[in-house]
Amino acid sequence: MTKDRLQKQISFIVEIDKLKEVYRRSFIMEATRNENDAEHTWHLAMMAVLLTEYVDTKDLDLLRVLKMILIHDLVEIDAGDTFAYDPQGQLDKKDREERAAERIFNLLPKDQAEEVFALWREFETGQTEEAKYAHALDKLQPVLQNYYTQGKSWRQHKVSSNQVLARVSVIKDSSVQLWKYTVELIEDAVKKGFLQK
Amino acid sequence: MTKDRLQKQISFIVEIDKLKEVYRRSFIMEATRNENDAEHTWHLAMMAVLLTEYVDTKDLDLLRVLKMILIHDLVEIDAGDTFAYDPQGQLDKKDREERAAERIFNLLPKDQAEEVFALWREFETGQTEEAKYAHALDKLQPVLQNYYTQGKSWRQHKVSSNQVLARVSVIKDSSVQLWKYTVELIEDAVKKGFLQK
Repeated sequence: MTKDRLQKQISFIVEIDKLKEVYRRSFIMEATRNENDAEHTWHLAMMAVLLTEYVDTKDLDLLRVLKMILIHDLVEIDAGDTFAYDPQGQLDKKDREERAAERIFNLLPKDQAEEVFALWREFETGQTEEAKYAHALDKLQPVLQNYYTQGKSWRQHKVSSNQVLARVSVIKDSSVQLWKYTVELIEDAVKKGFLQK
Repeated sequence: MTKDRLQKQISFIVEIDKLKEVYRRSFIMEATRNENDAEHTWHLAMMAVLLTEYVDTKDLDLLRVLKMILIHDLVEIDAGDTFAYDPQGQLDKKDREERAAERIFNLLPKDQAEEVFALWREFETGQTEEAKYAHALDKLQPVLQNYYTQGKSWRQHKVSSNQVLARVSVIKDSSVQLWKYTVELIEDAVKKGFLQK
């Protein structure tokens, strides 16, 4: 019984290794290649630990934030990374990701599959303080990557500052200070020519 | 003041992006390329969340385990990944990593630098239950990767089952069940010809 349970957990652990081969539009800071979802996830988790003091709520469950971040992109193993500024891709994103969640999370024993489902839905819905913080980080990180690669992905996809601002505005739902910082960074990126107005 | 503090945190977040370009000897499960430290770290954190039930102690602080895992390989940004079975490289590993920690962790504001230092030393010393669990996962993960790539890294470096068993035996300090599972996997790998006796 235990053996069967552990084998399910190991199967899941082996399966999600594929997250390392799901590539995003953003570049790593050295600008030499695109970033993959597994690296991205580690980076967000690290940011979550370091930036909690800026979250507006005083009542944040950091452990739940971390769990949520760790699993938030797993569905992209099947559904792929949908580019933030691709309206066509956004259309059926929900369906594709729902099917992916069904297949991947259910590799786990039932109780853990349910926990991961709950975390993923909490992230997707974005209503709790933990989910809001996870979203804020998920938006801030690519801004940093773009800024420090002189707007490599922004320029490649001809994105404008208004598009970026609209996209990342959820940051303010979690943290006034991080939002202020992000706006300044975007304005500076425009000034430096990393991002079109 | 806050701005200076946030800027230090961001500098650290930008700097540690380099972990994505520190490559390990182990391969990702699809065996197409070596794994980097950032992906590896995410994978360990995910395993930490899923396998707590097998830890022998009933009193485990999972949040501290996760923080410890997230930072455990940062020193390799400067010190590089030292191959587990390279006695020469192991000789000056401690010095190289200590210098790396000084440089990298001190990019953070003082209180956070101290927290990261403490977590890293706890991991390196390996005495607490949290550190033991982190070590166990750090050893179990490459065994899984080797097993599921038909021993690709083991064969490449002509490692024997006795070397692997000695190397990963710390798993039993955290979990009798995970240790039993690991031994069976290694024995099966020998039987299947993935690993020399």
